[in-house]
Amino acid sequence: MTEQSRTLAPQDVRTVACVGAGVIGGGWVAHFLARGYRVVAWDPAPGAERALRDLVSAAWPSLARLGLAEGAATANLTVAPTLAEAVAGADFVQESAPERLELKVSLLAEIDAAAPPHVVVASSTSGYPMTRMQVEASTPGRLVVGHPFNPPYLVPLVEVVGGERTERWAVEWASDFYRAAGKSVITMDRELPGFIANRIQEAAWREALHMVANDEATVEQIDLAMTDGPGLRWAFFGPCLTFHLAGGEGGMAHMLDHFGPALKYPWTRLASPELTAELRDAMVAGTDEVVSGRSNTELIAQRDRRMIAVMRALAEVAAEEAAERSEART
Amino acid sequence: MTEQSRTLAPQDVRTVACVGAGVIGGGWVAHFLARGYRVVAWDPAPGAERALRDLVSAAWPSLARLGLAEGAATANLTVAPTLAEAVAGADFVQESAPERLELKVSLLAEIDAAAPPHVVVASSTSGYPMTRMQVEASTPGRLVVGHPFNPPYLVPLVEVVGGERTERWAVEWASDFYRAAGKSVITMDRELPGFIANRIQEAAWREALHMVANDEATVEQIDLAMTDGPGLRWAFFGPCLTFHLAGGEGGMAHMLDHFGPALKYPWTRLASPELTAELRDAMVAGTDEVVSGRSNTELIAQRDRRMIAVMRALAEVAAEEAAERSEART
Repeated sequence: MTEQSRTLAPQDVRTVACVGAGVIGGGWVAHFLARGYRVVAWDPAPGAERALRDLVSAAWPSLARLGLAEGAATANLTVAPTLAEAVAGADFVQESAPERLELKVSLLAEIDAAAPPHVVVASSTSGYPMTRMQVEASTPGRLVVGHPFNPPYLVPLVEVVGGERTERWAVEWASDFYRAAGKSVITMDRELPGFIANRIQEAAWREALHMVANDEATVEQIDLAMTDGPGLRWAFFGPCLTFHLAGGEGGMAHMLDHFGPALKYPWTRLASPELTAELRDAMVAGTDEVVSGRSNTELIAQRDRRMIAVMRALAEVAAEEAAERSEART
Repeated sequence: MTEQSRTLAPQDVRTVACVGAGVIGGGWVAHFLARGYRVVAWDPAPGAERALRDLVSAAWPSLARLGLAEGAATANLTVAPTLAEAVAGADFVQESAPERLELKVSLLAEIDAAAPPHVVVASSTSGYPMTRMQVEASTPGRLVVGHPFNPPYLVPLVEVVGGERTERWAVEWASDFYRAAGKSVITMDRELPGFIANRIQEAAWREALHMVANDEATVEQIDLAMTDGPGLRWAFFGPCLTFHLAGGEGGMAHMLDHFGPALKYPWTRLASPELTAELRDAMVAGTDEVVSGRSNTELIAQRDRRMIAVMRALAEVAAEEAAERSEART
């Protein structure tokens, strides 16, 4: 049993320990600093502190543009000489070590031994289930996965899930804490290799690799197909809401009932699940929740407004960069 | 042999015929009108003209925000009473009929019989190969696929590919014409079911359906995972450039050499191709072209600037909409 009663309320966290300060760990450091936390980092790699401070400095102007929390400062970063010192005074620990299972297992056991037992510890792992990582920890109940996307100081998504020995309160606490820290949180009920976002991303990536392997498309065509095609919509409407609109007034139900046969087309190497009545109804009911009463007319207006805003914003950035380059040349 | 010598230069096109004026065809009509073309539309469905004019009116404010071409006006739209009249005077024909192969085959044959033989005819098909659609046409050499994304008046991407009996000049002409009409064009060398963008989208979609079918994720979680995760990056950096950055200073080469084993992980139901030396080198060389000499520091700066611009633009739209709703209530 962990000492849940001594755990701070998620919104009262002041000090975050970041164990591992490479691209992902350093990105977490920058995010937590920008949200006003004190951060204690530890990374055994040679030159890690210099690289970390450079990453934070490089990210800071971006974070300032997005809006810093009150009291946020790069001076709130301390680099600890040992793992034990890093986690000893922390209200929350984020582990972002290299992606090797045996390393994660032993590091999480070390963190678990050194951190106060009521403190929640999250791993940034891209895909290992916590069940396999928590095997050597004495208080595995407070160990969760908190999987970010790169760069963690900008991309809002964090996927939270526990292992078999994780206690439910820790999953809920971590979800609430990340939300308090400005993140967009998906709390998963069960462990799933790659979680959710990486599964979708990996399916797209493998199809892309197959196309290059078979000389069907080039890298350039694949990237352009994404950025100038579906990628523009996916910044604000996910795949389900997008296909709901593709179904016209009949929405997702019409889409599945009438374009269902497309699931048999060889449009990807990934076979489709059978479109059972259960799956059809689950997609329709789930999409209804996402649509949340908006009519197609409203959704189309919202989509168009966002797409134009995104395209104009990207065009402005490109124009600014071109002006800066031309200024730098003269 | 088609009469290529009589074909206008792509930039001299004045009149576009749109055959089929539903969501996709109507979207094309709105796009071509906004780019300053005269458009003649034909659609046999009852009420089609009213629906088309409504779609164009609804899209016009968006198109005006993006910037109209000189002379662009909704008054440049004519609805023809017959297919033959619609295409008789056209410099280019865009077919956007419902997605049924036998319908596409007969309609393209009718268009081919009625349109001047030197005029290029493009089909909006989402996935049929032109080889299977051009079988009843007398001059199949000028028939191409010009596959848009919904809504065609906003999403820039058009995938252009010919069938076995399409002549090379028609594919090149259509690509040049779409570019002149403000589109972002991928010219494919070979027919591929689903083309490129739909294959990537379909792989992501089928993985999503599998997750719902197996109770691993909800529709809401899938859409949030996309919009608040990889979807935010894909609006401006495609999957290959994204993974190049994930490789740190070693880029795509490091990513494949060190994270290659991840391709064996069960992170999606789609099996990966074998990471042969050829595939590895093709990915590295192709990514080098996309990177085009930019250092990682430059790429990260460009990524962060774009991501912040996109997030701020989307937040502004949401704030505007909230203000409008609250105004409407008072």
